[in-house]
Amino acid sequence: MLVGVQLTRPTILTAAIAILDEYGLADTTMRRIAKQLSVAPGALYWHFPNKQALLAGIAVELLRPLIGAAPLRFLVNDGAQAAGTQTDRLAMPDEETMIVVDTDGMDWQEALRTRAMCLRTCMLTVTDGSDVVATALANEELHSRVLEACALPLQDVVPDEKARRIAASTVVDFVVGSTVGEQSRQRLAQFTTKPAPTQEQADAAYRAAFEAAVQSVSNGVDLIIAGIAARAQ
Amino acid sequence: MLVGVQLTRPTILTAAIAILDEYGLADTTMRRIAKQLSVAPGALYWHFPNKQALLAGIAVELLRPLIGAAPLRFLVNDGAQAAGTQTDRLAMPDEETMIVVDTDGMDWQEALRTRAMCLRTCMLTVTDGSDVVATALANEELHSRVLEACALPLQDVVPDEKARRIAASTVVDFVVGSTVGEQSRQRLAQFTTKPAPTQEQADAAYRAAFEAAVQSVSNGVDLIIAGIAARAQ
Repeated sequence: MLVGVQLTRPTILTAAIAILDEYGLADTTMRRIAKQLSVAPGALYWHFPNKQALLAGIAVELLRPLIGAAPLRFLVNDGAQAAGTQTDRLAMPDEETMIVVDTDGMDWQEALRTRAMCLRTCMLTVTDGSDVVATALANEELHSRVLEACALPLQDVVPDEKARRIAASTVVDFVVGSTVGEQSRQRLAQFTTKPAPTQEQADAAYRAAFEAAVQSVSNGVDLIIAGIAARAQ
Repeated sequence: MLVGVQLTRPTILTAAIAILDEYGLADTTMRRIAKQLSVAPGALYWHFPNKQALLAGIAVELLRPLIGAAPLRFLVNDGAQAAGTQTDRLAMPDEETMIVVDTDGMDWQEALRTRAMCLRTCMLTVTDGSDVVATALANEELHSRVLEACALPLQDVVPDEKARRIAASTVVDFVVGSTVGEQSRQRLAQFTTKPAPTQEQADAAYRAAFEAAVQSVSNGVDLIIAGIAARAQ
């Protein structure tokens, strides 16, 4: 019997996200997470049948500000439907303080840009978060949720549902590609910076890279918006 | 002294690409490549200082049809300039038969679409090729080459260099994001298909997914093209 830890999906996810952020994707193993929680690795598999299902759960957590707080029915990536019990669903550890992207009162361009930037931010929350989300989007239900979140501002300007889905999908794939690139460059910079600059120089380089990335995503989204607007005329 | 194998960059890359295709990225290790070539792992490090540099080399090979045959000056990701000797540059094993994307005689939209689809095809050549390319694009010189290849058709329609770079970058990031998604879905489908369908059903599912992905990339590129055209007016 375990003492001092109740093993639930949220407990496991919280530990897994902390380990992902500290060690990166390659070293986020079921074994390491179990050790962190002082449980046997086997205990995790009751909640997540495999690492892939765990990563899908992490992706949902990261994407909460974009896709909202409602639990997903299918969280496990093996096609099995999660049982209806609370522990099988994702709890919302920070429900009270969670910031969900709010685009009320914005015009559609600004709302779409805001949601696209929110997607980028979600992916950058933790080390290798972009890789985790990019992979987890193979889950059809999660993918649909993200597409819906980005299609929402287009309701009036693109009345055709198929065209709206294409527009949202283009934005999502662009932001994913751009953010995976941004995080890869971050990794490479950490890996290759030599001779080691001062902390001040390192901070300045980081800020410059960050601002360039924001500008690049923003430029791309604006170009896609120009395409949507041109077709809407 | 080694017998029967001359260890060159092309020899190593050929072995590495075969292993990547068979075992996937996580299992493409320096150790496994060395074993395949019957050499000590240390022998590889004269040609590639680390796995990251090797993956960059693989990415260049995969992208040859898009970026052409000229060797890159900087192939190692540690910021060091590769020495000027032939063995430090990438040889071109299939130079004679290599197909480089040819867009002569096309209008700019068709040329850009063709180059975008070529980028996708390059990434799909091998298992996990999209992840390898997405990561390797953190290399600034490789990234510039890919951007130039996609900016080329825009020479006349977008005379401003900065705007041309934004357009090319949007297309590249979109195609990368879309193709990473496509390959993730392929992996997930292999992993989760149950009960095992007949070979015929599996083939049909694969074809349907492939065609949907082509359509999706094509739709997205067309939307970005619409944006470029709208601004060019």
